[in-house]
Amino acid sequence: MFVSAFLLLVTLCAQGGYGEERDEAQRPGHVSVVIVGGTGDLAKKYLWQGFFELYVNQVKNGYTFSFYGGGLSPADKATPVLFEILKALSCPKDVSQERCALLKEQFLRLSQYRQLQSVEDYQDLAKQIEKELQQEGMTEAGRLFYLSVPAFAYADIADKINSSCRPTSGAWLRVVLEKPFGHDFRSAQVLASQLGNSLKDEEMYRIDHYLGKQVVSRILPFREENKKFLDPIWNRHHIERVEIVLKETLDVKGRIPFYDQYGVVRDVLQNHLTEVMTLLTMSLPMNLSSNEEVLRNKLQVFRSLLPVGKNQAVVGQYQAYKTEVQQELNKTKDHISITPTFAAVLMYIDDAQYEDVPILLISGKMLDERMGYARILFKNDIFCLQNHNSVHCKPKQIVFHFGHGSLKYPAILVSKNLFKPILMDSEWKEVTEHKDVDVLGLPLSDYFVQMPIVQREAYYELISHIFAGRKNSFISTENLLASWGLWTPLLSSLASTFPRIYPGGAENGDLLDVRIKGKDISYHNEVVIIGNDQVGGFQVMQGKFRSSDMVSAWTEELVVRLAADIQEAAEAAVREAGVFHLALSGGSSPLALFQRLALHHFSFPWRDTHVWMVDERCVPLTDSESNFRNLHDHLLHHVRIPYYNIHPMPVQINQRLCVEEDGGALLYEKEVSKWVNGSSFHFVLLGVGYDSHTASLFPGSKVDGHGESLVALTESPVKPHQRMTLTFSAINRAHRVALLVMGKGKHELITQLSRVKDNPDKWPVTGVKPANGRLVWYIDYDALLG
Amino acid sequence: MFVSAFLLLVTLCAQGGYGEERDEAQRPGHVSVVIVGGTGDLAKKYLWQGFFELYVNQVKNGYTFSFYGGGLSPADKATPVLFEILKALSCPKDVSQERCALLKEQFLRLSQYRQLQSVEDYQDLAKQIEKELQQEGMTEAGRLFYLSVPAFAYADIADKINSSCRPTSGAWLRVVLEKPFGHDFRSAQVLASQLGNSLKDEEMYRIDHYLGKQVVSRILPFREENKKFLDPIWNRHHIERVEIVLKETLDVKGRIPFYDQYGVVRDVLQNHLTEVMTLLTMSLPMNLSSNEEVLRNKLQVFRSLLPVGKNQAVVGQYQAYKTEVQQELNKTKDHISITPTFAAVLMYIDDAQYEDVPILLISGKMLDERMGYARILFKNDIFCLQNHNSVHCKPKQIVFHFGHGSLKYPAILVSKNLFKPILMDSEWKEVTEHKDVDVLGLPLSDYFVQMPIVQREAYYELISHIFAGRKNSFISTENLLASWGLWTPLLSSLASTFPRIYPGGAENGDLLDVRIKGKDISYHNEVVIIGNDQVGGFQVMQGKFRSSDMVSAWTEELVVRLAADIQEAAEAAVREAGVFHLALSGGSSPLALFQRLALHHFSFPWRDTHVWMVDERCVPLTDSESNFRNLHDHLLHHVRIPYYNIHPMPVQINQRLCVEEDGGALLYEKEVSKWVNGSSFHFVLLGVGYDSHTASLFPGSKVDGHGESLVALTESPVKPHQRMTLTFSAINRAHRVALLVMGKGKHELITQLSRVKDNPDKWPVTGVKPANGRLVWYIDYDALLG
Repeated sequence: MFVSAFLLLVTLCAQGGYGEERDEAQRPGHVSVVIVGGTGDLAKKYLWQGFFELYVNQVKNGYTFSFYGGGLSPADKATPVLFEILKALSCPKDVSQERCALLKEQFLRLSQYRQLQSVEDYQDLAKQIEKELQQEGMTEAGRLFYLSVPAFAYADIADKINSSCRPTSGAWLRVVLEKPFGHDFRSAQVLASQLGNSLKDEEMYRIDHYLGKQVVSRILPFREENKKFLDPIWNRHHIERVEIVLKETLDVKGRIPFYDQYGVVRDVLQNHLTEVMTLLTMSLPMNLSSNEEVLRNKLQVFRSLLPVGKNQAVVGQYQAYKTEVQQELNKTKDHISITPTFAAVLMYIDDAQYEDVPILLISGKMLDERMGYARILFKNDIFCLQNHNSVHCKPKQIVFHFGHGSLKYPAILVSKNLFKPILMDSEWKEVTEHKDVDVLGLPLSDYFVQMPIVQREAYYELISHIFAGRKNSFISTENLLASWGLWTPLLSSLASTFPRIYPGGAENGDLLDVRIKGKDISYHNEVVIIGNDQVGGFQVMQGKFRSSDMVSAWTEELVVRLAADIQEAAEAAVREAGVFHLALSGGSSPLALFQRLALHHFSFPWRDTHVWMVDERCVPLTDSESNFRNLHDHLLHHVRIPYYNIHPMPVQINQRLCVEEDGGALLYEKEVSKWVNGSSFHFVLLGVGYDSHTASLFPGSKVDGHGESLVALTESPVKPHQRMTLTFSAINRAHRVALLVMGKGKHELITQLSRVKDNPDKWPVTGVKPANGRLVWYIDYDALLG
Repeated sequence: MFVSAFLLLVTLCAQGGYGEERDEAQRPGHVSVVIVGGTGDLAKKYLWQGFFELYVNQVKNGYTFSFYGGGLSPADKATPVLFEILKALSCPKDVSQERCALLKEQFLRLSQYRQLQSVEDYQDLAKQIEKELQQEGMTEAGRLFYLSVPAFAYADIADKINSSCRPTSGAWLRVVLEKPFGHDFRSAQVLASQLGNSLKDEEMYRIDHYLGKQVVSRILPFREENKKFLDPIWNRHHIERVEIVLKETLDVKGRIPFYDQYGVVRDVLQNHLTEVMTLLTMSLPMNLSSNEEVLRNKLQVFRSLLPVGKNQAVVGQYQAYKTEVQQELNKTKDHISITPTFAAVLMYIDDAQYEDVPILLISGKMLDERMGYARILFKNDIFCLQNHNSVHCKPKQIVFHFGHGSLKYPAILVSKNLFKPILMDSEWKEVTEHKDVDVLGLPLSDYFVQMPIVQREAYYELISHIFAGRKNSFISTENLLASWGLWTPLLSSLASTFPRIYPGGAENGDLLDVRIKGKDISYHNEVVIIGNDQVGGFQVMQGKFRSSDMVSAWTEELVVRLAADIQEAAEAAVREAGVFHLALSGGSSPLALFQRLALHHFSFPWRDTHVWMVDERCVPLTDSESNFRNLHDHLLHHVRIPYYNIHPMPVQINQRLCVEEDGGALLYEKEVSKWVNGSSFHFVLLGVGYDSHTASLFPGSKVDGHGESLVALTESPVKPHQRMTLTFSAINRAHRVALLVMGKGKHELITQLSRVKDNPDKWPVTGVKPANGRLVWYIDYDALLG
């Protein structure tokens, strides 16, 4: 959908002289406002009204204004259109009829249409502004460009503004952009970098109109003002879960060409709901109005979020969508779109404060009601011995109610069994007369309720923030890219996910109800009985490979099976020996296994498990290349294993890496001998490289030549070259060895390995032959079948 | 209350010959049953009936019996009393009237009273048994002594049984004991050791009649049979909380002399509810009938339980109790007993499976209803988008309903939104016709319900277990001592806790409702608004000590304040430098601080905190004497701090401890220099010893003589002598140093320190003088005021 654009121009005349509420941060002066796309839908519906209200409020502070509607149409065509829009502007409630009529007349005179197409048009606009300033002897305060045009036009317009229309003499330039800001991480990055060629970051104001909603913009102040109540409970020990929900009743008929390319995740979750999520969970900044601090704390949330994959999302599509797509995109009856119109996504913030607290982001079209809210549901921490009807026995929650729903108005609700929130802001009031409505499971009378005295449009709020240069309500480049970084992997996997079809409205019934299971989400009525035998249910194949046992399955099932086998081995060892010695390999293959063990194996006997390294790269342990670092970040940091049970390889001694004389290999060997009975690990997990190396035992390096040594220094053909590794002597003492091979790229290798004889110098992995233990190959179908 | 005791004897005659259901584990033979205290209340109410039913069931298996009621009274007095009891025995439901009459007649003939007072009485009993066996040519299967007498008589009777009444020729001896088994850990240990002189552990059957309740004894089989449903949800990720509750309506009138010495914690929580708790939470044994495995897994639960202190309990006493005590104990009107008749205790199992799951044990007299149950409430993991009335939107729970309540019968209930439990046992049936009752928040029709086909008395069940030698339903010595080990510290602190007085019955209203807050429990209506400013609310005094700042308070408040100060310092350092370097001392004083930090400081920036040691004993890190080990077990193991941020002192190098040539001190110094900017820790926590040593810098050892070295090896006057320590050079570079001094024992030292001049060689702690940092003394009132 393209916004028709045009331009209109009226000479500036009016200058207010009240000035008694002057914003001290800015010297008053002249401000030029340019709405590019000034006769489009958004401009017509919200923007002009917003700027009119800004005018009404700021003219008394000593500012003077001129307003330009800009567009591609010639002025003679567009001027009357703009005039109609401006005529329809309504007066702010707090201004008298009489004064409003006067102000509106002035506003009309200050507004004009200008064609803004070529560089010359922008140059002319600049000349016009300069001329006005000179003629009237005014100081310029700044220029505000509001780009209400499709995103593909942003870079070009920004370039023209930069080259031809920048203010001089220290006045500010602010360019306002509307979403979408890209389609995924890559495109958002390209767009950001294009804009970055023309505009400084502080000159860009990316609008997310949710941040202009009165309740949303009050989340941080509410958290700050009620800090003493919230501090003890705003954490994983008290929060049961967080829900951020935008339910809509409308469909997207008429907007399909746009919507079908985006879908609900890009349209609502990536921006609006994600922003609300960061406001709810970020560390409270010391100074709420510090852009830097707020941004830093927001970015910290993104860094702490666990990755969101396809197991963390369910998607749906309303039934009629298919037909609408066929009609609006001129497609045949067999055309299918899998763009979701409903999505529920489960997130976890992996830090001490929120670890394990489910955060649900949910939005959809064609649902039963229109309602937007964020709910913090607290844990049930009251035990009622006799009388279960007291208010303190009921659910405890804080609801940020953005609007609509049964309540109808925006409000912040705190259940009375929590605390009485402080009402500091004079623009908010407490609601004490309650309608007989139920809000998220509690009657309204069970809440303390506060609402804004005057309900204001998000756009007006945001326009006044832009004018004041308050950037907190806008999306910085870093914030934007962090959000796309979070969402892009999920969007990729959703590109091949078929959405559940729902009829729409009340008929949806419980079709879209979701269940949180472990760290995953699913539709509730997909599985009737939970806890089915997971492992047995999967298609796992057993067989032989190189005369050893082989387990094969699709990647995910293989990892599930291997993790289950390791736990079984661990339990058996702890039962028999009181301890389980597990040696783990580096590389990327085991990462999925580590995550599986960390997030799904709640009863793994970590307390009695010792973790050893199969091999290590000669880099500091904290280096991102370190095998141990990977193991730590993906597994050890997430489970409760005692410090002493962790045995990284001593690759760094005397502040240097893997120097023969420092005796690191011998040191590790001694450690193994000291702890591990007969130096026989209970379980050794190995991978295989494309060159058939295993552990850090590489082809052509006399891998059998380590004699009785358990640990050796070796050289890798790829960087970092130096390695420390368990030798075959150590590996082949193990009770059990698992060889994990995954991915299509390993198919060729598996084919070769199935034929060659044992020749560890050429094919190191063929040297894995536990003397008294058992070797099992875990090969996924990709590697096995290609 | 003393049980009157006597003895009766009737000659054995009847020998059943059916034998078709013979217990294969035992060869049939003759069994002598001796109930010592055979005319007491318990014997009258339950025991004789239980043994009669045992007789009815076992006589057909080929066993023969003789039954002896024993006591202190002479036979002529007691025999008629016993006869009255036996006459009143009722027939088991599954036996015909006719057959029962016959069996009862036989039973009467097999039973006799004997006076059992002196050693000779026991010798006579033994002779009598031997004679019978010889006369009838019977093989002896075993002798069962049921001690239904006060606990103080146990040791003496056990001694007599041992010396005079042991069976010969391989028959078993089983001695059954009733609680109380001691009054606290110490007395239980004494009793156990006394009994241990006479009886082997496997000969003792300590009865907890709760373990004979049909529902309780089915907890483990239920968990086993429904393993596939429960495994994925029986953990902290899914369990919201566990409640184990025994509500009683009766008072203890008439039993005050006994009850007032025990109270509800010893009477119900330490035994019945604790046993249920272990059954619910222990690792499921591979073999449910393996005594060893069940015991091992139970003991593991006790080892994993967090300590229970006064913050984990609330107690109450019904209003009339005071008067009852005055009357029954002949006390004046101003006598007050603080024995609790109600208690709610909060427990946590500190392992991966149950970490953070609140486990509530609650019992009381004079409540509104009689009801016993254990409830596992699961987390609300369903998000209902539109329709909130579906069963899957309701609470999920499993209820082990021991009996009474609105349901009236014992049953296991699983809410239908969880799973349909397997019904394997032929003695249980599914209940499908539902009365219209509500059980713990859900209508009965929302549950799958199963109940025993025949309801049996706990005592009958237990008697049959004793007979079969199944020890799982009894309390082993280790189990008993583990339980007293758990409860004794709480009981000590309750000895000075005034219980809340409650009126009794429905009038209690919500007076006994409790709130879980962090890891603590409190009465709900003690604090109306949660989250009051904790620190400011305490009586903390600020002042000067040795010209440095001093904070003083009662011990608990002091720890709270110090923990808050450390967090504040951490947050400031992370904000400014991105990292916080904290050096911690060993010793016992900081333990409370470590626990406070671990359990209450949820938002502590551990991710960016490095933990260093102030000093270390030259023992392996895993040694229980190691400072690091203490720090690890009380703090590091409980928080999410990266592995690399933990810096234990390298006291063990080359498999030897603190050898100068190994250069451990230099190694640590290098590590400090490498990580800590300017080697200036942000916060150093120190203690002071009675000899005024701080860190491991002892008087008379030239503590100033370490020059510029940051780390040194020193000698302690007490074992272990060798130490590694930060020097004053390191300590005095810190930004902030806290000196923590607690306990009355330090008062003399504090008095001296307040007077002496700086003389670090004599008073090492006077050498703490941060060059550019701040020193604060944290001294509790005990140390400050004596």
